[in-house]
Amino acid sequence: MQGLLDWWEARCASSNALRFVDVNLRGIGQVMFQNHPLAGLLFFIAIGWGSLAAGAPQIAIGGFVALVVGSATAYWLRVDEADIHAGLYGFNAYLVGLALPTFMAPSAAMWICVALGGAVSAVAMQAIANLFKTWSTPALTAPFVLVAWLLLLATNAFVNLEGALWASDVVAPLDPAFANPLRFGDFLQGTLLSISQVFLKGNGIAALLLLAGLAVSSLASAAWGLAGAIIAVSTAHLLGAESDLITGGLMGFSPVLTAIALGAVFYKPGLRVSIYAIVGTVFTVLVQGALNALVSPFAIPTLTGPFVLVTWMFLLGRAKLDPE
Amino acid sequence: MQGLLDWWEARCASSNALRFVDVNLRGIGQVMFQNHPLAGLLFFIAIGWGSLAAGAPQIAIGGFVALVVGSATAYWLRVDEADIHAGLYGFNAYLVGLALPTFMAPSAAMWICVALGGAVSAVAMQAIANLFKTWSTPALTAPFVLVAWLLLLATNAFVNLEGALWASDVVAPLDPAFANPLRFGDFLQGTLLSISQVFLKGNGIAALLLLAGLAVSSLASAAWGLAGAIIAVSTAHLLGAESDLITGGLMGFSPVLTAIALGAVFYKPGLRVSIYAIVGTVFTVLVQGALNALVSPFAIPTLTGPFVLVTWMFLLGRAKLDPE
Amino acid sequence: MQGLLDWWEARCASSNALRFVDVNLRGIGQVMFQNHPLAGLLFFIAIGWGSLAAGAPQIAIGGFVALVVGSATAYWLRVDEADIHAGLYGFNAYLVGLALPTFMAPSAAMWICVALGGAVSAVAMQAIANLFKTWSTPALTAPFVLVAWLLLLATNAFVNLEGALWASDVVAPLDPAFANPLRFGDFLQGTLLSISQVFLKGNGIAALLLLAGLAVSSLASAAWGLAGAIIAVSTAHLLGAESDLITGGLMGFSPVLTAIALGAVFYKPGLRVSIYAIVGTVFTVLVQGALNALVSPFAIPTLTGPFVLVTWMFLLGRAKLDPE
Repeated sequence: MQGLLDWWEARCASSNALRFVDVNLRGIGQVMFQNHPLAGLLFFIAIGWGSLAAGAPQIAIGGFVALVVGSATAYWLRVDEADIHAGLYGFNAYLVGLALPTFMAPSAAMWICVALGGAVSAVAMQAIANLFKTWSTPALTAPFVLVAWLLLLATNAFVNLEGALWASDVVAPLDPAFANPLRFGDFLQGTLLSISQVFLKGNGIAALLLLAGLAVSSLASAAWGLAGAIIAVSTAHLLGAESDLITGGLMGFSPVLTAIALGAVFYKPGLRVSIYAIVGTVFTVLVQGALNALVSPFAIPTLTGPFVLVTWMFLLGRAKLDPE
Repeated sequence: MQGLLDWWEARCASSNALRFVDVNLRGIGQVMFQNHPLAGLLFFIAIGWGSLAAGAPQIAIGGFVALVVGSATAYWLRVDEADIHAGLYGFNAYLVGLALPTFMAPSAAMWICVALGGAVSAVAMQAIANLFKTWSTPALTAPFVLVAWLLLLATNAFVNLEGALWASDVVAPLDPAFANPLRFGDFLQGTLLSISQVFLKGNGIAALLLLAGLAVSSLASAAWGLAGAIIAVSTAHLLGAESDLITGGLMGFSPVLTAIALGAVFYKPGLRVSIYAIVGTVFTVLVQGALNALVSPFAIPTLTGPFVLVTWMFLLGRAKLDPE
Repeated sequence: MQGLLDWWEARCASSNALRFVDVNLRGIGQVMFQNHPLAGLLFFIAIGWGSLAAGAPQIAIGGFVALVVGSATAYWLRVDEADIHAGLYGFNAYLVGLALPTFMAPSAAMWICVALGGAVSAVAMQAIANLFKTWSTPALTAPFVLVAWLLLLATNAFVNLEGALWASDVVAPLDPAFANPLRFGDFLQGTLLSISQVFLKGNGIAALLLLAGLAVSSLASAAWGLAGAIIAVSTAHLLGAESDLITGGLMGFSPVLTAIALGAVFYKPGLRVSIYAIVGTVFTVLVQGALNALVSPFAIPTLTGPFVLVTWMFLLGRAKLDPE
């Protein structure tokens, strides 16, 4: 694998076009913290598959457009080249580009928002990264959450931007009758879809491709991603979340990201870190429920807000978690 | 003009009373980023005219009271004298003093809130300026937005503070039927009122006086203010905002401030900066729509919240926008 | 008193068990900024009494459980020992442990949330303390407010977590008819309960025990606590707040904390500081009304959010308040 990466890096070093491809692939990989072009490629295929399977190719196209605009904007802004090359200016743009066609009806104005959202997410990344550099803490997906929330809220104010959330079940009132026994098939589906919903897709095959992409880049990340999904589905079920939300992966995508971030990426893996990551993952499930309630009057989804909030809480203190 | 300013500065240097007048005029000028007593005087006349024309002299009086209290509080707090002399402790207080009589019914308790709001806005300015100094970023009108939001929200909790927002059309549900063709007269009115609404007034003559005040101090600021209004009205119309909001200037006052801030004040003017400012201005229109939706459950106006949010996003990253 | 403290400190220095008791007592004391074990003990007795008198022993038990878990978590996280010994990792956990059984129906899942909340509040304290260290500003009760808000919001999403706020009068719509003349008995009750509601209890004897605990540690704190309550009840009444909220202490608990913080703890007491503290206390009453309105769509209480917001505003600017 390292040989393949070295060969590819050499190609990119001598070609601006290939470098731009590389930057965008790594941008997709960074949605799950992987600075790895092959992981990004597998994620890209997973999302393409998920979009086509759902009969919504505009979602994959939206992600692609915003990603390219976001990366190009970062070059135009002359941000640190090492950050661009690591894909740090792509992942928020890519997620904005997936979110808008998911939660808005297609229209010319929507596509303008996709491109504008890609550009602005690079600006927001630069701002939030600079803010949190003060505490050596990453921006996570906060730029995506901020920009997408604003653009989705704006659908209430403009006739030519039409929100589609009335047609979706992302935020639904809790009906206790839905809190059913969780059968094995439901458990499996909830676990897989918790992984694919990181990219706003409810698709099992996409989830397997995402896990493969994680494993190619980092086995620890793949393991924590899967563990995070299992912990989230179990916790949500034990607390009595609505079954449709659990099996749709909608209680689990933020905890999956928290688990990877705390367990495998931002602290050095170990027993103490594992305990910390598990507590953070369980707490993210509760925060997912909390933010579902908080955003419901505004008809917007939480996006990965719960992940950002909890992971910041668990990173900002620079917890000393090395083995004793 | 420079000779006049020098003569005036010499008078102020030898008279505490004139210095206090100067500080307050600059405080009004700083609402549109102008550290210039004559700009402040023209703004003051514009708002006085607008208030009288609307049959609401209490608004101009409220602004005056809060401004004087805010400036005096800044002296009492012994904040940096250079900041006081530049009017940095006046503009938030002045806006609080305009906002309360605009959105509340007059009463003794309201006037106490005007004075208290002027004092607290100086405290809030000191706090927020100190926070954002960490990133060499200005506080903008955040102290005004924070203090005025809190005092307006408080009208729900106290019988002697009566909110007047039910009587205003600041936040209204979107009715597609209102998204009409924009005639030239409407376009002109929307553009002018976008400028006067920076000071919460819907008055064309006030807008012309404000433009004159800007031009006296900075032609670039005047040009960007006008450009921001035109961009905002056009964008809002193309996206299908409610016509009454557009022609009332209520989609454009935050974009006007973003345009001046990014295009003429906080970055060195140039082609790259112009592109950046235009993107920021367009995005502010969308954020105005978003925040209209966000604040509507609380019956408070957005005030200049959209401007603060977007301009912080576009300033915090310290974008490198000098010519290539 | 100092002799007694020295004797106790010597005992704690030679016994880990006594040190842990000391840390937890100081943790309770820090709810009102007192790094003093005897103050903490009196506060603990006050809350125990208040809980039993209200027929809700689960509240005192919840506070105890979360406190112990929070302190133990701080040791496990290896945060600065001096901070642990000063009780800084206990007070937010203790308040979380009081708030959950106050605003949720008892259940196994609630007790899990109490323990989890205690642990997470230590994590949140580490994060927020690290954030605000940048401006030499304390975290105050922000970790409590954040964690408790999230867990209370989560009751909307999980069948096994049942919010009890429908059964409480913490947030009620304003009915002008309730704004009655304030008789002396009502005034006295409102003043005392403003003090006990700092710990979420409406109990006059608890309030007297709390005042005694304050006085044991700091006469200035006791005086400012009482003054804050009197200022709050008077201000709320003059502005026309709902009488039931005033006499229940629900308009005054945040102002009490603001008064102690600004008047006696974080600035050096003096005339200028007193004026500053009084303005901050009066403003906190208005912010209490504002936040009551802000949180009401979400069926959560403000907790000490108004205190945190206003006290941060009045601390972050590092106001120069020494005598002239």
